[in-house]
Amino acid sequence: MSDKSLELRKNLETKGLDALFITNPANQRYLEGFTGADCFMLATCGKNYLIADSRYVEMAERECRDAEVLPHRAPNPPLQDVLSRLASGNGLRRIGFERERLAWGLYDDIEKALGGVGVELVPTSSLVEGIRAKKTEAEIELIEAACGIADRALDDVLPIIKPGISELDLKVELDYRMKIGGADDVSFDTMVLFGARPSQPHANSSRGARLKAGDFILIDYGACRDGYRSDTSRTFVFGKASDEQKLAYKTVLNAQEASLKKVFPGANGRDINDIALGIIKEAGLPAFGHGIGHGVGLEIHEEPSLRQNTDVFLEAGMVITIEPGSYKPGWGGIRIEDTVLVTPDGCRILTRFPKELMEL
Amino acid sequence: MSDKSLELRKNLETKGLDALFITNPANQRYLEGFTGADCFMLATCGKNYLIADSRYVEMAERECRDAEVLPHRAPNPPLQDVLSRLASGNGLRRIGFERERLAWGLYDDIEKALGGVGVELVPTSSLVEGIRAKKTEAEIELIEAACGIADRALDDVLPIIKPGISELDLKVELDYRMKIGGADDVSFDTMVLFGARPSQPHANSSRGARLKAGDFILIDYGACRDGYRSDTSRTFVFGKASDEQKLAYKTVLNAQEASLKKVFPGANGRDINDIALGIIKEAGLPAFGHGIGHGVGLEIHEEPSLRQNTDVFLEAGMVITIEPGSYKPGWGGIRIEDTVLVTPDGCRILTRFPKELMEL
Repeated sequence: MSDKSLELRKNLETKGLDALFITNPANQRYLEGFTGADCFMLATCGKNYLIADSRYVEMAERECRDAEVLPHRAPNPPLQDVLSRLASGNGLRRIGFERERLAWGLYDDIEKALGGVGVELVPTSSLVEGIRAKKTEAEIELIEAACGIADRALDDVLPIIKPGISELDLKVELDYRMKIGGADDVSFDTMVLFGARPSQPHANSSRGARLKAGDFILIDYGACRDGYRSDTSRTFVFGKASDEQKLAYKTVLNAQEASLKKVFPGANGRDINDIALGIIKEAGLPAFGHGIGHGVGLEIHEEPSLRQNTDVFLEAGMVITIEPGSYKPGWGGIRIEDTVLVTPDGCRILTRFPKELMEL
Repeated sequence: MSDKSLELRKNLETKGLDALFITNPANQRYLEGFTGADCFMLATCGKNYLIADSRYVEMAERECRDAEVLPHRAPNPPLQDVLSRLASGNGLRRIGFERERLAWGLYDDIEKALGGVGVELVPTSSLVEGIRAKKTEAEIELIEAACGIADRALDDVLPIIKPGISELDLKVELDYRMKIGGADDVSFDTMVLFGARPSQPHANSSRGARLKAGDFILIDYGACRDGYRSDTSRTFVFGKASDEQKLAYKTVLNAQEASLKKVFPGANGRDINDIALGIIKEAGLPAFGHGIGHGVGLEIHEEPSLRQNTDVFLEAGMVITIEPGSYKPGWGGIRIEDTVLVTPDGCRILTRFPKELMEL
């Protein structure tokens, strides 16, 4: 059993569970190295099982570190039968499931089958995600590699930022440069927004929106390397920035730097959030409604979540984003975001693209 | 109210429901044109509501055709409170939810809040997906545009297929060509597999797998245009095909063509599946374990699902894939897949890349 599976075993024992039914693919990948989708894992205290349909059986056998691979679906037994057999064979009485990741319908199907053999299904949160929040050296190396790929790609794409280019064109070129620069994939759907459109923090890049002088350019993007992700946002002004743009930018950058100074082991996420919020509000700007940051790793949003009214304490080895913003419909938006590693004495910023206001 | 919302209203009335709680983003997009993620829709018989957190409020207001946009999360009321208020204000007693698309945990949170105001939550399937299965003229045009983009991109990328290129390199170039050719995005994670690796029907393209003479090249890919998708698989041989490769290819192509002839309104999906399966088995080849095809539209896998032991009857206006395959671990795999429109008198193939065996 890997160290990660042993840690999960401790979590199961603490909760009085005999096994965990795992539907989150990132958790399957974390525990067993399996990179497929649509498969199911049963992690018992002694052994992991990967339950796959015919499309994934050979792939799972090749990839899984330790798990036994079991097929399901016709002509093989359906998932519920495989689970019932495993429960009976291993004497499992209490099986946890991922409450945020299991669809109600599949829960219902399984519950009916397992209830019949005396198994109780127990909702759980964070049993694997909590382990994932603190990264190993190998994981940090991959995230750092992803951050470097992202930094270089943004640098490479700057020369093509010209009047009339569309948001979608710039996005396509940035994504391509990350991939030829060593990314397996992008971290998430890249956001390139021009003009007033960055006031929508999560809009889609448009074919119709074309760049003109004085526009904000907000880019929120990341690279993925062997499953591990980076996350960066930068905001530029195309041409000469107005005084209002400069002042707003400086405020958000001050807020980001103040938050970064608060990142160290033991720090509370709400304090990191609130210091940035305070600086932006004090300057009379609209404050961000999202949280100041989130964990990054195999998923783009993972634990911990740093936001208002929520206590969460940082530990060395966590990798998080710090991303304050200010958004005003009709005017535009600014977000400045880095991916950072919590170190024993503070933090190390892994995304290194410059943050002074660039007038492109 | 749009025609689509009116159709949903009929489905709600048939089921005795006052509203549907919609978590599937494709259903939200279908009904209201909203392209965001992580949001919630409540479709009542009179009106749609889109419940969004701060990241999506402005975007939802700009995009939604008719829905009223309501914010949730601090400092706004949480989702449960918004739903309770809507239920009370509109006299909703029975609210359906998407059983395959709602996470157990969110169901549990909502059920607790709504149970308190006397609302019953009812599991449903296919209330919107069933409407989506038959495409409008406008939807067919977009899917056809996506198919054309995909066809041209594969043609464009053929010249770079040389000894030593990696699966991942070829995938990146194919994806890029789709995007500069007019795709907003790829339909799904493109699969490029060389040599024996196509025996894994859903493996990930690898940085390490490099092309050599005699290899199979399996490419399964699609373009997305304004949310609508294409889906094509082609299998080539790099260099001269062996007699065994030629014979297996011819068998799978025969199977695909036989299935295509069975596609017309009223045809049963299981018959379309079984004729291909029979041809492949009769030739002594391993038969595909996946279904012969699936609907394509706003999602890459949608209704109807065409497979063994399942009755499903085609209607004109459906867009489906026909994709038989044969896979043998250690040897390789062949899949030939088109996206096709069911027409009043048969079908029209929308993906037009040639299917005779190409020795590249």
